[in-house]
Amino acid sequence: MELLKFEKGRKGVVGMKLLEERIRRDGIIEAGEVLKVDSFLNHQMDVQLYREMGREWRRLFDGAEITKILTIEASGIGIACVAALEFGVPVIFAKKSKTKNIAGEVYSTTVTSFTHGNVSTVIVSKKFLHPGDRVLLIDDFLANGAAMLGLIDIVRQSGAELVGCGIAIEKAFQPGGARLREMGIRVESLARVSKLEDGLIEFID
Amino acid sequence: MELLKFEKGRKGVVGMKLLEERIRRDGIIEAGEVLKVDSFLNHQMDVQLYREMGREWRRLFDGAEITKILTIEASGIGIACVAALEFGVPVIFAKKSKTKNIAGEVYSTTVTSFTHGNVSTVIVSKKFLHPGDRVLLIDDFLANGAAMLGLIDIVRQSGAELVGCGIAIEKAFQPGGARLREMGIRVESLARVSKLEDGLIEFID
Repeated sequence: MELLKFEKGRKGVVGMKLLEERIRRDGIIEAGEVLKVDSFLNHQMDVQLYREMGREWRRLFDGAEITKILTIEASGIGIACVAALEFGVPVIFAKKSKTKNIAGEVYSTTVTSFTHGNVSTVIVSKKFLHPGDRVLLIDDFLANGAAMLGLIDIVRQSGAELVGCGIAIEKAFQPGGARLREMGIRVESLARVSKLEDGLIEFID
Repeated sequence: MELLKFEKGRKGVVGMKLLEERIRRDGIIEAGEVLKVDSFLNHQMDVQLYREMGREWRRLFDGAEITKILTIEASGIGIACVAALEFGVPVIFAKKSKTKNIAGEVYSTTVTSFTHGNVSTVIVSKKFLHPGDRVLLIDDFLANGAAMLGLIDIVRQSGAELVGCGIAIEKAFQPGGARLREMGIRVESLARVSKLEDGLIEFID
């Protein structure tokens, strides 16, 4: 296991640092402020790294009495499921849907992708989110915040309480993180990228 | 945790039996031989159950020297990631794509959904599957086998070796399982449904 070898020489490197080091090592910076992490985060998935990320969120949200983790398909699902093992709670994933909420059985919202320039509808069955639930949102990336805003809308519709957002990589030079924090939402990003250009990457400590 | 309570009174109920009992308790049988398991398997996800499923596959494929787990978005991802923790290997998920393999950087295949009546293209980056890899396929459902046949095609293109398929629920009255086994592929389904009608469900032991 790559990660285990990596950890051996790096005692005490946990949580944010572990992910930052992995991004420095295996992330690929492409034109247009694109950070490709498909070798370990969102195409091939290093589940041991996910476990360390889950443990870090568990530590950060200690005492928050989370009852459900909510994510969005597709690349948030794996991270959320492995993290959920640390919290001992179920995961719900918002599904992309071609139909609007007709039967009234689902919470429905729209997510505008700035990357792909399209608007999609995502749904969550009303059976799985209720008042009394305390919800942690988890996703792989936070850039403009579109996915998070959609999930926040679903939590609001359900009457559940939003505890916060657990993000793997925040592109802090894009407005999503600031937007959420201005709304009073707790955002815990394990790696915050402040700059991404000319093959160089900088993190906020 | 629901599952933990459930396990307490059911010592020794592991693997196939655990999933069968959960399907009997929480599955919903709908018209047209539809089995809804969205409260624990593919919308809300019981990750403790996933862990038990992962342990069962680990036991079944003991000694198979699996190096990668391959699944398909979206509902296979969570199960595959939690199972992968037991195997200590990375997961790759085949991505739905709107574009064919133009750049030659991906393995590409088509999957025909009998349920939704559409054909979709799925891709896997060539970076993540190679000759020498020993691949376990994981998915939530096996019915007509379309998704598995697509993943098998991708493994074949890569030159990796296919070890077998780990399926949560096989609809054994549909042809997918038989089709794969006739091809000489090892299929380990944790629950095999033989009959699904009039609100009743039967399993193959």
